[in-house]
Amino acid sequence: MEHVHAVDWAPTGGGVRIIDQRRLPGHLVHRDLMTVDEVVDAIQTLAVRGAPAIGVAGALGLVAALRPFAGEPAATFVPRARAAADRIGAARPTAVNLPRAVDRMRAVLERHAAAGATTGALLDALADEASAVLEEDRAMCRRIGEWGASLVADGARVATHCNAGALATAGMGTALAPVYVAVEAGRRVTVIAGETRPLLQGARLTAWELTRAGIPVTVVPDGAVASLMRAGRVDLCIVGADRIAANGDAANKIGTYALAVAARHHGVPFYVAAPSSTIDPRAATGAGIPIEERARSEVTGSADALTVPADAAVFNPAFDVTPAELITAIITDQGIHRPPYTFA
Amino acid sequence: MEHVHAVDWAPTGGGVRIIDQRRLPGHLVHRDLMTVDEVVDAIQTLAVRGAPAIGVAGALGLVAALRPFAGEPAATFVPRARAAADRIGAARPTAVNLPRAVDRMRAVLERHAAAGATTGALLDALADEASAVLEEDRAMCRRIGEWGASLVADGARVATHCNAGALATAGMGTALAPVYVAVEAGRRVTVIAGETRPLLQGARLTAWELTRAGIPVTVVPDGAVASLMRAGRVDLCIVGADRIAANGDAANKIGTYALAVAARHHGVPFYVAAPSSTIDPRAATGAGIPIEERARSEVTGSADALTVPADAAVFNPAFDVTPAELITAIITDQGIHRPPYTFA
Repeated sequence: MEHVHAVDWAPTGGGVRIIDQRRLPGHLVHRDLMTVDEVVDAIQTLAVRGAPAIGVAGALGLVAALRPFAGEPAATFVPRARAAADRIGAARPTAVNLPRAVDRMRAVLERHAAAGATTGALLDALADEASAVLEEDRAMCRRIGEWGASLVADGARVATHCNAGALATAGMGTALAPVYVAVEAGRRVTVIAGETRPLLQGARLTAWELTRAGIPVTVVPDGAVASLMRAGRVDLCIVGADRIAANGDAANKIGTYALAVAARHHGVPFYVAAPSSTIDPRAATGAGIPIEERARSEVTGSADALTVPADAAVFNPAFDVTPAELITAIITDQGIHRPPYTFA
Repeated sequence: MEHVHAVDWAPTGGGVRIIDQRRLPGHLVHRDLMTVDEVVDAIQTLAVRGAPAIGVAGALGLVAALRPFAGEPAATFVPRARAAADRIGAARPTAVNLPRAVDRMRAVLERHAAAGATTGALLDALADEASAVLEEDRAMCRRIGEWGASLVADGARVATHCNAGALATAGMGTALAPVYVAVEAGRRVTVIAGETRPLLQGARLTAWELTRAGIPVTVVPDGAVASLMRAGRVDLCIVGADRIAANGDAANKIGTYALAVAARHHGVPFYVAAPSSTIDPRAATGAGIPIEERARSEVTGSADALTVPADAAVFNPAFDVTPAELITAIITDQGIHRPPYTFA
């Protein structure tokens, strides 16, 4: 199945090529990141977003930023590489993928440095590790897609929320991977994308990557999905997850829980699809997952077009937690997990 | 309880004074409508909105538009008045309130014209009828408020959707009237306003009129209200209705049904507050209520800031139907109706 590539090596020039997601859906702009500043800026400004995609961009970006220094001795290259890894690894605080990917790069650097490798050999080893991060992410997506596609019948109408698609990973996505694999297998699948207020990732990103892939998608206000369920127009839901507790409680974009409640009310299966690395056994339940509250300006609009009066309060949580009892199954790269969930 | 006045006689000049709701929440702009064109334009462009408010604006606006012709003979004034009534009555097609209010004005005109009244006497009779429409609307709101306030305890946290407040009527609103009356009685009430995509009436209008009245309000993305219920932060829901079927099924702004489903899941009481005139016994159930689908541009944004790709479909229903079994009670100006609902 053809899907867009949110992060990849640039075909020439040694950079990391990303789709600038700030310009979607109006403009498809590729950017080749070549320096630490460019990589950090792209991550911080959400030009590249989605926890898996950020991790891959960090690993590839570190190599891209170090390539111009191939000519300097290892004695100055190694501290330069450490400093670059520190800056890139700290570009965004929340998801575990970025520090985890950068930690892998650091480990390779230190192992080869300790063995007295030349700068050229260090760069080769770092590039190999970054390519491994990239390929593992792609393989993870495909495995989720292959497990999950068994749940997506011919003619299925799949509701999703936010964007857990190709734009959020280096591969075919997580929640959308079962859709891509089902379509690849010749099944006709249509997607209902909740627009996902306040930042509209469903409308802007999910709708964009699916239309690019030729998969029919309908964007609906978040509050309208329940009406579609009532009308019998939704066969199943698949959403992503930012973190899954040991008992199966799943944190994901705000609005996911409301979708799960509506699905339960209407008897619609509700699936969470995420890498097994998303499971955090240290959180016994969803109560152990901290929920970030974000700026009121995301809800109120810009100063010249305020949609909320200045003296009204705003509640803008980035995520919510869907309790395990509302989740029909959790699809990971390792298989389809059914309740009761006991992750360790 | 002090609340804003969406429609009223202008204090001087003979016009009908409205709050231009297109400018809210950024700017409080009153406009005095003086001509048929101005009245029709204000209704069609949603400067004045909300079915009861539109009806009142139509009745008062007709009088305002006819006042400059007080000096002409009845023989030319009467056909002028008929033509004006026709144009104003047809300004918006959906809600029954506007044609109903204009029909009352027409009946007064014809009765006095048939009796040979002078233009001055005709104008006086029309002004009296318009004032009656205005006062009846205010009294209707207050009765809803007084009935409904019994359901709003001290400390209550009330979730609502869209705007069924003072801005939608000539009085203190319908869904918000119980809140105003409870606050008037000294109870502390806070309101959670779903922002109400796509047109954001909750964020723009409900939040504005409540902050003006000094009532604490928190605006939340529609998909976040269920999370607040789960956290035990919502005590009851009160929403308005555009049409109520004989069995109690209630049509209201899209997203109302999703709120009702979430309320049921969490055991939160869900009330519909509306004038008894909203009940349409000709519709046996909600299936008999046609649902308008509106322009995709309401969801996709403007051409210079599209949030949905051009080749994605959009589903943008204006209303949904909440089945009677999810409605704890229906509050009208005639009392609190409990299930089973059997309106005739």
